[in-house]
Amino acid sequence: MKARVTVTLKSGVLDPQGKAIEGALRSLGVDGVASVRQGKVFDIELDGSDRAKAEALLKQAADKLLANTVIENYHVEVLG
Amino acid sequence: MKARVTVTLKSGVLDPQGKAIEGALRSLGVDGVASVRQGKVFDIELDGSDRAKAEALLKQAADKLLANTVIENYHVEVLG
Repeated sequence: MKARVTVTLKSGVLDPQGKAIEGALRSLGVDGVASVRQGKVFDIELDGSDRAKAEALLKQAADKLLANTVIENYHVEVLG
Repeated sequence: MKARVTVTLKSGVLDPQGKAIEGALRSLGVDGVASVRQGKVFDIELDGSDRAKAEALLKQAADKLLANTVIENYHVEVLG
């Protein structure tokens, strides 16, 4: 089963990397970008085919390793 | 207008970071993960409200800066 975990910074947390990308886009002539925030995405292949079990497993993985829940939110999506 | 650009490694490109995460999950006792591949996500706020224009702008941004199209694929999604 395939799944995707998306990890993004909580609002209010500074994102210097995003700010740098904003500046770089501007200097490359890409106009109209108001703000950029960078996150991470994990494409995960799971054994088994139980959707509920997969979601529980992914939440456990995100809490333990993939996200720092003090400053980051995560979103789990089982793609089937 | 809000948009999201997701950048993932092309299949066949080695992902040592993903492999490390796989190993770390296993040693943390998260079982049932067959493979992990890591990518990047950019949450972008755009000026204006023209959907087609926004998509064109994001493709330009991805081609110029956000993705290395030799080894990475990108997916543009305008969230409105």
